Amino acid sequence: MPDVLKNDRFLRALRREPTDTTPIWVMRQAGRYLPEYRATRARAGSFMALAQTPEFACEATLQPLERFELDAAILFSDILTIPDAMGLGLSFANGEGPQFAHPVRSAADIAGLAVPDMDGKLRYVMDAVRLIRRELHGRVPLIGFSGSPWTLACYMVEGQGSRDFATLKALCWNAPKLAHQLLDTLARSVAAYLIAQAAAGAQALMVFDTWGGLLGPAPFREFSLRYMAQVVAALKANAHTRDLPAILFSKGAGQHAATLADTGCAGIGLDWTTDLAEIRAAVAGRVALQGNLDPAVMLASPDVIRREARAVMDSYGNHPGHIFNLGHGITPDVDPDHVKVLVDEVHAYGRTLRGS
Amino acid sequence: MPDVLKNDRFLRALRREPTDTTPIWVMRQAGRYLPEYRATRARAGSFMALAQTPEFACEATLQPLERFELDAAILFSDILTIPDAMGLGLSFANGEGPQFAHPVRSAADIAGLAVPDMDGKLRYVMDAVRLIRRELHGRVPLIGFSGSPWTLACYMVEGQGSRDFATLKALCWNAPKLAHQLLDTLARSVAAYLIAQAAAGAQALMVFDTWGGLLGPAPFREFSLRYMAQVVAALKANAHTRDLPAILFSKGAGQHAATLADTGCAGIGLDWTTDLAEIRAAVAGRVALQGNLDPAVMLASPDVIRREARAVMDSYGNHPGHIFNLGHGITPDVDPDHVKVLVDEVHAYGRTLRGS
Repeated sequence: MPDVLKNDRFLRALRREPTDTTPIWVMRQAGRYLPEYRATRARAGSFMALAQTPEFACEATLQPLERFELDAAILFSDILTIPDAMGLGLSFANGEGPQFAHPVRSAADIAGLAVPDMDGKLRYVMDAVRLIRRELHGRVPLIGFSGSPWTLACYMVEGQGSRDFATLKALCWNAPKLAHQLLDTLARSVAAYLIAQAAAGAQALMVFDTWGGLLGPAPFREFSLRYMAQVVAALKANAHTRDLPAILFSKGAGQHAATLADTGCAGIGLDWTTDLAEIRAAVAGRVALQGNLDPAVMLASPDVIRREARAVMDSYGNHPGHIFNLGHGITPDVDPDHVKVLVDEVHAYGRTLRGS
Repeated sequence: MPDVLKNDRFLRALRREPTDTTPIWVMRQAGRYLPEYRATRARAGSFMALAQTPEFACEATLQPLERFELDAAILFSDILTIPDAMGLGLSFANGEGPQFAHPVRSAADIAGLAVPDMDGKLRYVMDAVRLIRRELHGRVPLIGFSGSPWTLACYMVEGQGSRDFATLKALCWNAPKLAHQLLDTLARSVAAYLIAQAAAGAQALMVFDTWGGLLGPAPFREFSLRYMAQVVAALKANAHTRDLPAILFSKGAGQHAATLADTGCAGIGLDWTTDLAEIRAAVAGRVALQGNLDPAVMLASPDVIRREARAVMDSYGNHPGHIFNLGHGITPDVDPDHVKVLVDEVHAYGRTLRGS
């Protein structure tokens, strides 16, 4: 029997219930800016070994919680675990970006893809979730996550990172049926993956649509949003995930916030180029908002970090349903002491905002 | 005495006057996707030699006009000519991105910057404008251009390209007075540069704010927009540029369209992630709109290119003031025949739209 949750600020804010202060966690909070993370990675030998060994993944997940009063933990993993389990052969050359040995290009490639067995090649993820959940002792909730169908497809078709992922876009335009077949397989895989994480103990779920913002408005709805909606619908239809809040994060897609809220997700993640006050008006209290400090602010002085954090919170205002976060992952060059400055300021100013 | 302009569709559309069809030009239309451009570059020996030799720059500028019925020519040059003339030492290592030998980092570096002499180190640009204008024989208007103050500062402070230009952002936050001093020097330089291009024969002026969209809403207004407004005001105060239309292109800043229109510019360039119908409503007929086909569409089949081009034009509707363009520069992997497909479709469908 898992421990009772001691800090439920994050989950309460996701349900848009009042909290004593604003909860905060940080995208990529377990990462290279922490010397203890770099030590764990060195012991693991490679990023893949780190991500695929539950003990290492658990250690990395918990490290930022030892330093900072964060209100949630997030599974340490990679967003490309699903295509790797599909047999595409993921590697990270020289600490550079991801690469697939077998990118998906042809109709036969796409027809050959199947939803991976969650107790097979992805079992290490569920083992990590179980271990982390146990080691958390109910301190804060654990967030499980996946890449979005569109974002997974970007890497699978391109075979690696790209500025514009034009290879997948060309597939969408020249052979839309094939693109939809690929995205449907991925949506079913992402849903199964998140459901398995929930069954293993994840208490909230997040979908990272890192590259949805590369699409124009109509293609965004057709190729990215539609498949995130399919995932959310599948989560709502399953006993393990029916009551678990899901957060959708589409980088660069602030203009689509209201449509994202229509999916029935609990929260929307926002990058720093959007105005929280405007988005709050656009979604009309239907979802919680997560974000959205510019990660580059973390390179400024502590006083600036405090001021800019307060500006983000003022923009949202004294309403329930705000989860503080950066607008994108924290970068490796950030001083860990700056994260402490941020976390402490968010909690202190959150109390001030509430007049308590 | 320059020739009388034979095709003034582009200039009329910028003034939001009726035209027989929709004018089109293509960002980076003189570029690597053209074999004749690659041949000229090979003869020049390097990109810098190509950009800095008026005869080569003229040749490159005119090449796409020989192939396609484009409605405007744009000076072939680099956006970093101003910082190079300021002494920062621009180079392009192995055909990769730009690099400065002497990036701007300290208060002394910033204090040491002066508006370059337009008849000195930048004379080659004005010589190119004069030569191109002569060789155009009034066929289409010639667009002069500059990087925006913010975008120039991005490269000058970072010293090279970057995903987030966090070094300049940190300067803005930690030492805003220094950042403003740098941006003011750049705004005065950009204005002088555009005025000199106009005096040499440029008939419209464009400011490329490639990286303004990396800023949150408030910093965008403070560090990017404000200095483009300063440039536009300076153009309006000068006899050479008072009546010349200026286009501002801030990539990723569609949400700021109305504020961009407030500067008094004639047109706004838009990337493909914005909806032209929405932006047209937001700017309420105060400016022309230029854009905004996803450059990745150019990799799709001719039928898809035609369909997507029509979708962009339908989105703007049958109103004066639309200049067709891509939402960003054309990429080197595009088949030149696809550009012909696009240009011809835009002109044909523009006539259909107008019912003529």
